[in-house]
Amino acid sequence: MPRISAVDVIDVRFPTSATLAGSDAMHPDGDYSAAYVVLRTDTELSGYGLTFTIGRGTDLCVLAARHIAGPLVGREVDELAAALGPTYRTLVGDSQLRWLGPEKGAVHLAAAAVLNAVWDLVARRAGKPLWRLVAEMEPADLVAACDFRYLSDVLTAQEARQMLERLAPSRTERVEHLAEVGYPAYTTGPGWLGYSDDKLRRLCQEAVAAGWSAIKLKVGGNIGDDKRRLAIAREELGPDGTLLIDANQVWEVPEAIAWVNELAQFSPLWIEEPTSPDDILGHAAIRAAVAPVGVATGEHAHNRVMFKQMLSAGAMDYCQVDSCRLASVNEIIPVLLMAAKFGVPVCPHAGGVGLCELVQHMSIVDYVCVSGRLDGRLLEYVDHLHEHFSSPVVVDRARYRLPVDSGYSARMHPESIATYRYPDGEYWRAVRAQR
Amino acid sequence: MPRISAVDVIDVRFPTSATLAGSDAMHPDGDYSAAYVVLRTDTELSGYGLTFTIGRGTDLCVLAARHIAGPLVGREVDELAAALGPTYRTLVGDSQLRWLGPEKGAVHLAAAAVLNAVWDLVARRAGKPLWRLVAEMEPADLVAACDFRYLSDVLTAQEARQMLERLAPSRTERVEHLAEVGYPAYTTGPGWLGYSDDKLRRLCQEAVAAGWSAIKLKVGGNIGDDKRRLAIAREELGPDGTLLIDANQVWEVPEAIAWVNELAQFSPLWIEEPTSPDDILGHAAIRAAVAPVGVATGEHAHNRVMFKQMLSAGAMDYCQVDSCRLASVNEIIPVLLMAAKFGVPVCPHAGGVGLCELVQHMSIVDYVCVSGRLDGRLLEYVDHLHEHFSSPVVVDRARYRLPVDSGYSARMHPESIATYRYPDGEYWRAVRAQR
Repeated sequence: MPRISAVDVIDVRFPTSATLAGSDAMHPDGDYSAAYVVLRTDTELSGYGLTFTIGRGTDLCVLAARHIAGPLVGREVDELAAALGPTYRTLVGDSQLRWLGPEKGAVHLAAAAVLNAVWDLVARRAGKPLWRLVAEMEPADLVAACDFRYLSDVLTAQEARQMLERLAPSRTERVEHLAEVGYPAYTTGPGWLGYSDDKLRRLCQEAVAAGWSAIKLKVGGNIGDDKRRLAIAREELGPDGTLLIDANQVWEVPEAIAWVNELAQFSPLWIEEPTSPDDILGHAAIRAAVAPVGVATGEHAHNRVMFKQMLSAGAMDYCQVDSCRLASVNEIIPVLLMAAKFGVPVCPHAGGVGLCELVQHMSIVDYVCVSGRLDGRLLEYVDHLHEHFSSPVVVDRARYRLPVDSGYSARMHPESIATYRYPDGEYWRAVRAQR
Repeated sequence: MPRISAVDVIDVRFPTSATLAGSDAMHPDGDYSAAYVVLRTDTELSGYGLTFTIGRGTDLCVLAARHIAGPLVGREVDELAAALGPTYRTLVGDSQLRWLGPEKGAVHLAAAAVLNAVWDLVARRAGKPLWRLVAEMEPADLVAACDFRYLSDVLTAQEARQMLERLAPSRTERVEHLAEVGYPAYTTGPGWLGYSDDKLRRLCQEAVAAGWSAIKLKVGGNIGDDKRRLAIAREELGPDGTLLIDANQVWEVPEAIAWVNELAQFSPLWIEEPTSPDDILGHAAIRAAVAPVGVATGEHAHNRVMFKQMLSAGAMDYCQVDSCRLASVNEIIPVLLMAAKFGVPVCPHAGGVGLCELVQHMSIVDYVCVSGRLDGRLLEYVDHLHEHFSSPVVVDRARYRLPVDSGYSARMHPESIATYRYPDGEYWRAVRAQR
């Protein structure tokens, strides 16, 4: 009976700002980073989780994760596995820490890291990839693990259970379907704002050659640049390819409407994060004014209450949940359920560090257990930093293949941690020595 | 020409959980605390600011404030005073730290602490209380100091300037009026959830005897208890007194509607924080269903974008800005302007540590510069922890008197810090020694 004996929380930072990979209109110089949590047990079993950050501030998430994970030490893994709902409520509900949110910002990012590690631990103990652990849970047990607080005017736990029960008998068919064809994806790799036109064109050509028919570009720096860059991408994709654009929150509401309508000639499927991620009503106004271009948002929607409103206000066409901003599976599944109820496809936010590894499980769960649909769904893919993970995603001809290893896929190689641990890893010590 | 030479950020915690002062349905055991910022200069001048917290997690705000305040070291105070807008944007806009928000949670609380200290420093340098510094600024300069980002669909900087100019010629009259009568207030002191009926009744009697005609009670634990407690308070206040109730976010939307309608027989003026502070549309639904009881919220509304939506969605009757959750004067004044535009009275959240000291300045600015009105306005007052401040609020017969000392009133006594500094102050060392 393994029991949690210690919690390690590690600040890991990769120097991505040096290459401009990841650059956008709001984040010109991110160093993709993680607050990385290891739940060690008194056996060889450990659980691994993380939250994604972009450099400074990772230390805050590390400190918060240490506070939040404290009550886990001494708990038996099998007992945790049978009490995922109460465990979530204990960790998220600390009566003093909640003042710093509630359920938002550094404390909620940290809760995601810790709870991702809890789910990883439970899946490893069961010897299953996380998606399969969830897909084999009884609807009632899955509902009991989830957080429906503040949602009951839109979705009750009882309704959630009925939705899950409706699809339960056919889960196996959809698992088999995914095993065959994989989960459809798009790539953000070619379109970072800091890249030159030549690099953009070359990367688009390479992407198309590798089978990608959907590419995302960062926009919002300068309208002239945006038009020139979108023309290049549209040319390489052809008229039938899917072009996605992402403004990373740079615009005012009226500005977003004007700008997107100028770019509509390139027929983007969606405009992502056109304004403040908190502006539910602003997103609804933009959506009404830029149709048929869709509005996608969610990577900064900080909890399930924000998604409830985005969905019920008609503010989003595509729901971009994030595995590190929402407090793990317990909070993500209620969002998947609400999106299914409103008929909005879930297209998770990925990229970063480990986000592709994590969110693939959630998209699979969405198809197998919650929505039962693949139409309109595209999972983000960015081709960097996967080499640091022991079970990296496998993407083939623009499709994610079903993960087979046990757990939630966020375990990093010990060598990567030794190199990029901040501030005392080899890489960072060498950088300081050179100054 | 004083120049900032160092920044001290100190974790100060008061053991309020021992007395249940501050207990409510969501926060049963808060230790009222502060991340306290001192901007030291190369002269005797210093600036003092804080953000309010309730115990665990104060260390996160301290760490964040150290990051955020870094760029201030070396800056001349007079140059800062002439560049309050750009200074705000530099401190709030760090391109890596913003991932942890954006503009919410620990990083935004910490930005409040640092910017409160900046405004305090500038006011001390000018030899004026903060409210007077602001009340003597030209409308154009005040607008330049403010953050209107993401607000332009509801309020532009140009419209803000026109609103301020309209009231500028009559500012002096309102200052004189306040000097004479003070700013109207209510007291929360008698109504903490952890107090017995006898203590509640005694404290209500004492409050009425001291001139209070408006009292707030915490509710939401148990409907039977709430009815009994409200009956006691109504009895002591009499039919003409103002009864306020506060649920501190405990209810679902339908539950809030049913519960408040059960308590309507006691004629409360408002129900405060009936549900998740993020639930703009939920507040609007509650407001529509519990009228004539009003809906008050805002102490957890994490930035100006949330207030924009609360106001434009018709979700609040009373706007409870907080001086430590919004990023100081730069972000609060735009909220005061929006509230004035929508005709919603601003009744700031206070209590805690130093909140009364800070928000009095904002209510005065609201009356003198922004709304020009006192009707429907009540400033919160809680009678604890003022003894730790060098310029504590002065409240007489339920009215705040105009602050006269220079600055933003958040400077704590060095002896208080030495005692309650966490974890190494005398009080906390003694607690550990007794264990």
